[in-house]
Amino acid sequence: MHIPNRLLMGPGPSNVSPAVLKALAQPTIGHLDPAFQSLMEDVKEQLRRVFRTKNEMTFPISAPASLAMEAALVNLLEPGDTAIIAQNGVFGGRMADIAKRAGAKVVPLSFEWGKPVCPETVAETVQLHPEAKLLAFVHAETSTGVCSDAERLCSIAHDAGILSVVDTVTGLGGIPVNVDEWKADVVYSGTQKCLSVPPGLAPITFSERAIEAIKARRTQVQSWFCDLNLVLGYWSGTGGRSYHHTAPVNAIYGLHRGLSDLLEEGLEASWIRHRALHDRLADALQELGLEFLVDEAHRLPQLNTVLVPHDIDEAFVRAELLNKHDIEIGAGLGNLAGKVWRIGLMGQTARPESVERLVDMLGHVLTEAGRQAVA
Amino acid sequence: MHIPNRLLMGPGPSNVSPAVLKALAQPTIGHLDPAFQSLMEDVKEQLRRVFRTKNEMTFPISAPASLAMEAALVNLLEPGDTAIIAQNGVFGGRMADIAKRAGAKVVPLSFEWGKPVCPETVAETVQLHPEAKLLAFVHAETSTGVCSDAERLCSIAHDAGILSVVDTVTGLGGIPVNVDEWKADVVYSGTQKCLSVPPGLAPITFSERAIEAIKARRTQVQSWFCDLNLVLGYWSGTGGRSYHHTAPVNAIYGLHRGLSDLLEEGLEASWIRHRALHDRLADALQELGLEFLVDEAHRLPQLNTVLVPHDIDEAFVRAELLNKHDIEIGAGLGNLAGKVWRIGLMGQTARPESVERLVDMLGHVLTEAGRQAVA
Repeated sequence: MHIPNRLLMGPGPSNVSPAVLKALAQPTIGHLDPAFQSLMEDVKEQLRRVFRTKNEMTFPISAPASLAMEAALVNLLEPGDTAIIAQNGVFGGRMADIAKRAGAKVVPLSFEWGKPVCPETVAETVQLHPEAKLLAFVHAETSTGVCSDAERLCSIAHDAGILSVVDTVTGLGGIPVNVDEWKADVVYSGTQKCLSVPPGLAPITFSERAIEAIKARRTQVQSWFCDLNLVLGYWSGTGGRSYHHTAPVNAIYGLHRGLSDLLEEGLEASWIRHRALHDRLADALQELGLEFLVDEAHRLPQLNTVLVPHDIDEAFVRAELLNKHDIEIGAGLGNLAGKVWRIGLMGQTARPESVERLVDMLGHVLTEAGRQAVA
Repeated sequence: MHIPNRLLMGPGPSNVSPAVLKALAQPTIGHLDPAFQSLMEDVKEQLRRVFRTKNEMTFPISAPASLAMEAALVNLLEPGDTAIIAQNGVFGGRMADIAKRAGAKVVPLSFEWGKPVCPETVAETVQLHPEAKLLAFVHAETSTGVCSDAERLCSIAHDAGILSVVDTVTGLGGIPVNVDEWKADVVYSGTQKCLSVPPGLAPITFSERAIEAIKARRTQVQSWFCDLNLVLGYWSGTGGRSYHHTAPVNAIYGLHRGLSDLLEEGLEASWIRHRALHDRLADALQELGLEFLVDEAHRLPQLNTVLVPHDIDEAFVRAELLNKHDIEIGAGLGNLAGKVWRIGLMGQTARPESVERLVDMLGHVLTEAGRQAVA
């Protein structure tokens, strides 16, 4: 097994520090071992600090973030419930798909890809649907690089007395996420973006209101694995834990170390670093003649969506960067396939040397691709 | 973060070799990187060899084995379908719970805990329910230490023209599993038992018949994450992969290494090793005056369920072994809580030195516990 050393500048995973990799390789212990339970308590507390919440039910789901999305929606929604779901990229669409599979009536709210979710439209729709149980949206759309105004959207939901579900898979650690201040109800993320921990876990937090809604369900949660009523007994801090599933012990070691490092740097410092590196990258890309898909005001600093110039073979550029220079950048997804590159600057990847190396190599490869286009 | 060095002799996880731990700590790369896709192809082929199958759809689910159980059942079952589910422990009960949540009518077949699933009873029930779509059972019941006759049970299902779902979470690698010879339809396992890889992944295999049944569904699979129609595009070997979720890259490194080591040892050699170590343990436990829950003919060599003597505080014994001697053994689960210990001899744990160390220390602790009981 030969694993190359890549500079990971795609939409995730981001580069993982040697310290986190080393943490992964500590000896496996039992998931009910007091030493592991104590570590789980630490991780829950670390996640509360990173999400900026006092929510007791804050923990890492033992699966990728897509399952956290599913857990958020299938716990809150019962057959016949109405869900207002904003869609301005791939992941809003996925939320709608999951909500339908849970038997919910989905009120879809579509916005142009590359634009944020419009709060005014959401407010009108919420007014028109007093029967709605929740509003779901993506804070940081990984497919387009757009940041939506989570604070305002959560506030609209809260004022209307409905629950909010916030996808911030790409947001957490890279831009402000303030769960309690936003009065958000269910917020989830992934480990492999701005937390710079290998993929496989999904931090999630549930407000008291969300838990009350789950306890008040008339029907069982359709998924046994995601049923929060069962998961609660496993992750709850009081007394002995009841067996639910076997937690991914070594992955939790890595998450613990990654969160320690982030909290040591400080959340604000991390946000500033991501913003500063984005500015540096944006300037350099402009010098290369490249343009962004997203207006400056709504760009995610950690996910830069760049339009592929007309005469350039986008797949050639990605392959050259990967195969000759060990740099991964991402392709477009869904409607944007073939039209954009997605350049990640997340977590450990958000360093000056990453920007310099990418810009240098991208310059070379674009020149070569341009020559091919002419020939 | 201080992680103790434990001898893991509970129901899983088992001890992980230094080589597998080292593999986990290799640099993270992208899940769509050709280098990772090539590794995924290797892992799929390794799993085919370990499951003894030619099934194309053989891969590790990116979550613990409980989600593989859910994936098996929710893909095959539609609302109104009938599922015959044998229950002789915790995990058969969990299967029934999941099947009900999928809207299926469950024909429960209960057997005494500590006894195997009775093929004659299953055959009669299958005859009585020509409308049944599948038979599900646990090959290696982790809650009791019982091995059921998977070959015969699958054959009953196959002869009746219904699908079989086999839980061999604790079986794979430790006792014979022959998916193709059994004509089994969906078989799943976990990584943290006899494969000796950290928890978090769940190998699964689907027969052609199972895939046809999934393709012939009238309704969508209720879980987006588990929907095999979507997962197929991500793990399929032909052409480019379509994005589904982000695979747990580093965990797959560990699985690859663990499977390589198992295949190098040889499956038969591993089965023989597990059996030989079980025999050694059983003799030693008998000398300590301990008795097994399960008749010799139906014992899993890798999971030894031992009755707690009347006058002994079972939790004290487990705590002493863990805290003073760094040895983990398991408690009873469900109906057997407080009545048994579960002593695992799985994967890397199945070594002569594990048996010797446990027997020595257990002898000491039992003497101490006996003294307390008298006092």
